[in-house]
Amino acid sequence: MKKQALGELFFVFDGGKNHKLLFNPAMAGSRFAYVKKFEVPDTLLPSTFMVLRLDGHSFHRFQSSFSDQHAFAKPNDSRALELMDRAAKTLMEEYRDIRLAIGESDEYSFLLHKSTALYNRRQSKIVSTLTSLFTSSYVLHWPTFFPDVPLQYPPSFDGRIVLYPSEQQVRDYFAWRQTDTHINNLYNTAFWALVLQGGQTTTEAHATLRGTVSKDKHEILFSRFGINYDKLEPRYRKGSIIVRVEETSVEAAELSGKQKSKAKTHTTLELLHCDIIRDDFWEKYSHILKD
Amino acid sequence: MKKQALGELFFVFDGGKNHKLLFNPAMAGSRFAYVKKFEVPDTLLPSTFMVLRLDGHSFHRFQSSFSDQHAFAKPNDSRALELMDRAAKTLMEEYRDIRLAIGESDEYSFLLHKSTALYNRRQSKIVSTLTSLFTSSYVLHWPTFFPDVPLQYPPSFDGRIVLYPSEQQVRDYFAWRQTDTHINNLYNTAFWALVLQGGQTTTEAHATLRGTVSKDKHEILFSRFGINYDKLEPRYRKGSIIVRVEETSVEAAELSGKQKSKAKTHTTLELLHCDIIRDDFWEKYSHILKD
Amino acid sequence: MKKQALGELFFVFDGGKNHKLLFNPAMAGSRFAYVKKFEVPDTLLPSTFMVLRLDGHSFHRFQSSFSDQHAFAKPNDSRALELMDRAAKTLMEEYRDIRLAIGESDEYSFLLHKSTALYNRRQSKIVSTLTSLFTSSYVLHWPTFFPDVPLQYPPSFDGRIVLYPSEQQVRDYFAWRQTDTHINNLYNTAFWALVLQGGQTTTEAHATLRGTVSKDKHEILFSRFGINYDKLEPRYRKGSIIVRVEETSVEAAELSGKQKSKAKTHTTLELLHCDIIRDDFWEKYSHILKD
Amino acid sequence: MKKQALGELFFVFDGGKNHKLLFNPAMAGSRFAYVKKFEVPDTLLPSTFMVLRLDGHSFHRFQSSFSDQHAFAKPNDSRALELMDRAAKTLMEEYRDIRLAIGESDEYSFLLHKSTALYNRRQSKIVSTLTSLFTSSYVLHWPTFFPDVPLQYPPSFDGRIVLYPSEQQVRDYFAWRQTDTHINNLYNTAFWALVLQGGQTTTEAHATLRGTVSKDKHEILFSRFGINYDKLEPRYRKGSIIVRVEETSVEAAELSGKQKSKAKTHTTLELLHCDIIRDDFWEKYSHILKD
Repeated sequence: MKKQALGELFFVFDGGKNHKLLFNPAMAGSRFAYVKKFEVPDTLLPSTFMVLRLDGHSFHRFQSSFSDQHAFAKPNDSRALELMDRAAKTLMEEYRDIRLAIGESDEYSFLLHKSTALYNRRQSKIVSTLTSLFTSSYVLHWPTFFPDVPLQYPPSFDGRIVLYPSEQQVRDYFAWRQTDTHINNLYNTAFWALVLQGGQTTTEAHATLRGTVSKDKHEILFSRFGINYDKLEPRYRKGSIIVRVEETSVEAAELSGKQKSKAKTHTTLELLHCDIIRDDFWEKYSHILKD
Repeated sequence: MKKQALGELFFVFDGGKNHKLLFNPAMAGSRFAYVKKFEVPDTLLPSTFMVLRLDGHSFHRFQSSFSDQHAFAKPNDSRALELMDRAAKTLMEEYRDIRLAIGESDEYSFLLHKSTALYNRRQSKIVSTLTSLFTSSYVLHWPTFFPDVPLQYPPSFDGRIVLYPSEQQVRDYFAWRQTDTHINNLYNTAFWALVLQGGQTTTEAHATLRGTVSKDKHEILFSRFGINYDKLEPRYRKGSIIVRVEETSVEAAELSGKQKSKAKTHTTLELLHCDIIRDDFWEKYSHILKD
Repeated sequence: MKKQALGELFFVFDGGKNHKLLFNPAMAGSRFAYVKKFEVPDTLLPSTFMVLRLDGHSFHRFQSSFSDQHAFAKPNDSRALELMDRAAKTLMEEYRDIRLAIGESDEYSFLLHKSTALYNRRQSKIVSTLTSLFTSSYVLHWPTFFPDVPLQYPPSFDGRIVLYPSEQQVRDYFAWRQTDTHINNLYNTAFWALVLQGGQTTTEAHATLRGTVSKDKHEILFSRFGINYDKLEPRYRKGSIIVRVEETSVEAAELSGKQKSKAKTHTTLELLHCDIIRDDFWEKYSHILKD
Repeated sequence: MKKQALGELFFVFDGGKNHKLLFNPAMAGSRFAYVKKFEVPDTLLPSTFMVLRLDGHSFHRFQSSFSDQHAFAKPNDSRALELMDRAAKTLMEEYRDIRLAIGESDEYSFLLHKSTALYNRRQSKIVSTLTSLFTSSYVLHWPTFFPDVPLQYPPSFDGRIVLYPSEQQVRDYFAWRQTDTHINNLYNTAFWALVLQGGQTTTEAHATLRGTVSKDKHEILFSRFGINYDKLEPRYRKGSIIVRVEETSVEAAELSGKQKSKAKTHTTLELLHCDIIRDDFWEKYSHILKD
């Protein structure tokens, strides 16, 4: 709860902490208030890009805890991925300083522009609040994406903020995550084809893939199972990318005889499953890194 | 998702990130992997008590967003408080290094013993994961406590960790929070009596209370409304305290002719609404601070 | 003393700490060695420029502690400034990652290129070692610059590192220090002209200058004392700038019939008293910020 | 230089930075002053003991750079150790919050009481200023201890602060350093006896000592060289310990007919070479850890 002076609603719902402290500064409370001095500052370096990465906590356990018929589909469960996207959108709707996000599996990364002054750049405050809201949205919207699978226990995420001084590093971070998506998905697709269609045990499937390079897996998929990897869902191959797109509209209005124009920024979120490594993306959405 | 080697379930649900990286170390991914070097360590000082304090984020807005007939009751809403307690218990069930907690209104504080090695004492990891789990449990169990009030948007919490070197400081921290509970609740009780029973506007009620000390509010409650403050629910006056109680039972078992005894520790959580400032509490539950 | 394995010289002068620990790992020492775990990491963000600023500690006391005839000259003491330059050069000779420095009065700032891996970017190590070496050189060379003024007690400096993500910020940092030099020197020059030549007391001189802007001070100096401020020593007006200039020479050598060429980089330090705010400087010495 | 308002001496020696900024807040300087925002706080946890450990930087090179006849004596050079003690005393004279110090070879550790508010517990400020003053004193007093050995280049030290929450850890820290002293000195004493008296090469001497335990080295020293290790200089075996001893004297004075008493604390520094591991020391000097 904010500790600043707040309007009356504050009293209705929050107990009027501050007013009380204001009225009775010499109360018993003050004897213990010294413990507040142990809160040391944790300001993040100004003018540096922040990437917040959230990661499912013990999700292998979480996902396997559902009964077989409801367990996450293999190698990808689109319901689970769409729920992640939903939670990511909640975060971007609430925090306008997030300009870009990328997600795969049970992780999501968010880019806060280097100019952000969110919570005065206090690390714990940012990392905890944003991780909390993501989690909250994930649980709240679970029934929409898994209508027949009640949550058996509360899933959680960990979060961390990494600082990047330059635009190139930010681009490379997102390229790193998308490359990771590709590597994992190609492996999993081949693995589950071997298991589900090829009849191998999971141990055999790992053994089959051991030592193979990318080209080999493409070949296994195509020659044995007739799967053209490059034709599979872009969502699985590229992950989810959410871009904030801002459109400025100039509205003219005549008010009491005077002509006034108000610039108003409309922000929309676009969900993409495109390449984020090549220049095209960064040229098209050049506003992401701009001041 | 853990990045360590995991068993087969890992592949089922998590995409086998590591195995893949292991198999193809020279892949495109490595060109971008340098961005991982920007993750600087954030280890918390060893052998120091950690207090994690969670606080509802914008809860005055959150709570007022429900329609009048469903809004949180005044001055205290026991459903909301019990939901907080439920989420706190989830955290303590999952993290055994939490030995004590105290909650009031929309905040909760948790004590991790100084000996904890949780997540190698990495600050972001601890603060984000625990805040996330608390939030998750809060949202998951919302319908149980508010069966007729669907959540309209995802509530969130912020978290911070404060380190305390000594036992006395830990005691004073908990005393500080309980004193705060008392101050707020006394004010709110008087305030809402003036409004709901006395017919004052909220502005008038604040004016009536301005400058009053503790004794004055007791007097207002008693003489005008017949309320003996000290007889009100301890839950409201003292807040919620959750203590981990550990019981060691020695079970004797005869196995293949040999007598064996196994010591087994059962841990239970006790929810209390008692005084935590005086020595009694700390003497009775002396194991909380013990090594 | 480095704790890594070292050659025999190590034993001669340092007592072979490591070898001993290696030989007798189970010795009594190990019982206490746990205290080493309290050394938490303090790594500075990679790929970010570091500016180390050193500042004389209590130099007003230090400088006034000498007898009148030996005290620092007013408004500038060139011996003191040259000694600062000497100490700065020692630092730049020893630490090649320092590419630029600026000094005025009793402070000096040093730029370490963002690529530096000095001491693995450990903050305490860098700030302490460099401040120590600067101090050491200052004291060692004192007699050269103040042959008739024995040091009466050990002067000291404090140091701090500030990180800058971008080249523009680095330029602005140096511009900030040079602007500061200008402001201080103009004030002091006018102040001491009023006192030493104009016969004012120091209180009167401050009063005379109160509320004046730059142009007023120029006017006072010129009309009352015939001093053209812009003709004064650049050292006083611009401060001291030290640039590392690197020259690569290709040496051809015939060795055993084979033609070999070795590129060798000679580094020299240039002491300047020029403008560092305008583009000219940064264009001429463009290698300072380059990778 | 302090940036606070200072008296007139400030102007004499420091250029009146602040006054000027005060007078002309809108000057050119302000355009660049934003760079100051990058100075993020580095406050150390309150109420925790600080140990500052200084360590000679590249001292094996430093010490070997003197010609043979002047090089540090082996296995111990009392002049070098006494110079270290002198520099340590300078630090303790200047900083009264240092209550205890221990030194060996080219390192020294200082204990600041947990209650210290020195420089508002800012890490860089403390570690840099104290390391600087130690270095300054070391260089300044060099000629006193090495009258015939001019310093050939400036020696430097690195510093670090380690925080300890409890008294026991502080005791163990000092025990750790003294155990280290013992281990190193015993090894070196045996090593140099083998080389200087036994005629072994340094390689042979290391080989002789490889695998030996403490008892073996005592035996080698006694049987081969007639050296009773326990009779050697305590300074070499125990290191240097400096304790601040405070004596409070109550002075009675009759002033204008009224009896007044003033308590005055005299502080003195005691240099010891005693055991710091056993309880005796900590009982005798119990004020070191007291509040």
